[in-house]
Amino acid sequence: MNAPQLSLSRRLRVSPFESRSMPSASRVSVYNHVVLPVGYGSLEEDYWHLREHVQIWDVACQVQVEIKGPDALRLVEWMTPRDVAACEPGQCIYAPLLDRNAGIVNDPIVLCHANDHYWLSLSDSDVLLWAKGIAESGSWDVEVVDPGVFPLSVQGPKAEDLLARVLGESIRALKFFRFVASEISGIPVKIARTGWSGQGGFEIYLMKPEQGEALWDIIAEAGEGLHLRVGAPNLIDRIETGLLSWGNDMTLENNPFEAGLDRFFKLGKQADYLARQALESIAEAGPSRKLVRLAAGGEPVDPPRDTWPVLRASGEPIGKVTSMVWSPRLEQNVGFAYVPIDLSHPGAQVGFSAPGGLRSATVCGGDWAA
Amino acid sequence: MNAPQLSLSRRLRVSPFESRSMPSASRVSVYNHVVLPVGYGSLEEDYWHLREHVQIWDVACQVQVEIKGPDALRLVEWMTPRDVAACEPGQCIYAPLLDRNAGIVNDPIVLCHANDHYWLSLSDSDVLLWAKGIAESGSWDVEVVDPGVFPLSVQGPKAEDLLARVLGESIRALKFFRFVASEISGIPVKIARTGWSGQGGFEIYLMKPEQGEALWDIIAEAGEGLHLRVGAPNLIDRIETGLLSWGNDMTLENNPFEAGLDRFFKLGKQADYLARQALESIAEAGPSRKLVRLAAGGEPVDPPRDTWPVLRASGEPIGKVTSMVWSPRLEQNVGFAYVPIDLSHPGAQVGFSAPGGLRSATVCGGDWAA
Repeated sequence: MNAPQLSLSRRLRVSPFESRSMPSASRVSVYNHVVLPVGYGSLEEDYWHLREHVQIWDVACQVQVEIKGPDALRLVEWMTPRDVAACEPGQCIYAPLLDRNAGIVNDPIVLCHANDHYWLSLSDSDVLLWAKGIAESGSWDVEVVDPGVFPLSVQGPKAEDLLARVLGESIRALKFFRFVASEISGIPVKIARTGWSGQGGFEIYLMKPEQGEALWDIIAEAGEGLHLRVGAPNLIDRIETGLLSWGNDMTLENNPFEAGLDRFFKLGKQADYLARQALESIAEAGPSRKLVRLAAGGEPVDPPRDTWPVLRASGEPIGKVTSMVWSPRLEQNVGFAYVPIDLSHPGAQVGFSAPGGLRSATVCGGDWAA
Repeated sequence: MNAPQLSLSRRLRVSPFESRSMPSASRVSVYNHVVLPVGYGSLEEDYWHLREHVQIWDVACQVQVEIKGPDALRLVEWMTPRDVAACEPGQCIYAPLLDRNAGIVNDPIVLCHANDHYWLSLSDSDVLLWAKGIAESGSWDVEVVDPGVFPLSVQGPKAEDLLARVLGESIRALKFFRFVASEISGIPVKIARTGWSGQGGFEIYLMKPEQGEALWDIIAEAGEGLHLRVGAPNLIDRIETGLLSWGNDMTLENNPFEAGLDRFFKLGKQADYLARQALESIAEAGPSRKLVRLAAGGEPVDPPRDTWPVLRASGEPIGKVTSMVWSPRLEQNVGFAYVPIDLSHPGAQVGFSAPGGLRSATVCGGDWAA
């Protein structure tokens, strides 16, 4: 497959950081209608750098849906099985959004500003339309809008040192999945201890797009001596860390039990929600398949363009690989796959069919041990 | 701006025609989460070929939303000001979908299979979520699904000759915006006399994705002697023809009056619809701006990455250019822009600010005459 150039127009929304993040990007994608740089050096170079130093990422594509008004809490509750009422102002929660069949619509991080004011920081689907479709169909006293707020991310082991230079030492006290309102040289931002890597870091929500370049430059300049580099969400790191990608590892066709998102909620929350009946039925019957970590030796794979079939020893197709990449640290191919329940325990052996032929693989636990 | 390579994964859905359409593509985009080839030769080469011969386009990205069941007609009516009840089985209508504020959610072609069975053939937003959000919030007896049906397009003056070779002479009788069920060498398809060009042609809806390559090859082989070439929606042709692009020339922020889509419907249809009140208010007050055709001399522009400001002679910003390209046939730059009502008549003079400096431009009528 050749890798043709991306043609740009207004339809692919401009990130406020584009003039800084794009010129040196070697690979890009499109996410929530926004251009997302995904690579600068090779995947492996970007990976090792992220593990050692600190990177600044243009993740403006994590667009927000703002839900505001007397019924804001009730609407956010309606969309997810998570107990949103327990989320305090200044707290973030990871909240899968589910349709009536318990299919996964999106898996945003919800930022609670107040119990009548939330942001959903999205993965790649038009939740603005989903939430508006619901809100405009009933008697919900809410506003559902795109607030025009865009995050950049600072990730890596030196992220805290970098942020302390920009924001002062007090930022070190910010806890995981908490956020605060702040200013960086007069630029209003929200700072969250979140981010799509396993190396720790922060997401900085830019409130006024026209200040994107100034904000970027302040952070870039503060990185002197920390080996700060422009980077991007890294496929190797996110798979090793067990971070799922909506559209890759789960879609509207998957429910949270099979995708393993049930660890983020308990059934039976008090507030009513759309997927309650479907979700309780699935819980009762038990899911028929599970998303697992899969490790495979042999030559490094090229990451899949589409799913690869998972096979029983007999050759029978029984599932699919959704993501996979060579880990230079674990020295094997690591990925995610849907497999039947009877093959979902660590140590189970399966095959899968990748370009170049059949491979054998082992189901792994959370630490990639079989 | 460099033009980096597009990184592919499952999240960017695979077209059933990708193995045929992608290897020779020089430029691609992403549309409805599907990779869309947008160029093969230069824009101008692709344009002249389209006007003279016939092209086969991979437009699988025009994904479908299927709405089926006793309340299907009522739901489609609810989403658009168009009189859907008047649409007969086998007919297509262009139907802007509007939110409660009369913002444009999408501008699909609706295909009526029966009055309890419709497809919406989409522009670039997740109408599946919009329609499901509405349907799952009320007592609608409908199914709303992605049917997994993908179109390819055959466009150009020789498109009818090509289709006659594949389907027999009777296909020549198919009227504009009508469709029929058919088979091509045993492959079930729907054939519509539609397409996103000004040169005439057909869209062929593939029912089973696994037959995409076979269908493509049959059509490609039938093109012998017709100068058939793989092609793509062409920016020059679509602007000259006056075809608007959702995401470029209109978004959720625009209403159909200012975008000029009001020529496709009459206010006051019998069926109830979500935007009725907002739309009637806008009609009564009159829109404050209009999307117009704009022509500008001087050097050829590079098509805009984002909107360009439109200016009064005094320098005051009063609107924005949404699309523009050099037309080698009209020998000027042609595009679309939002301008205030008092400057929306053919012959009106405005300025706009493009990279490289200020330019003057003339508002044009439908034939690009000032």
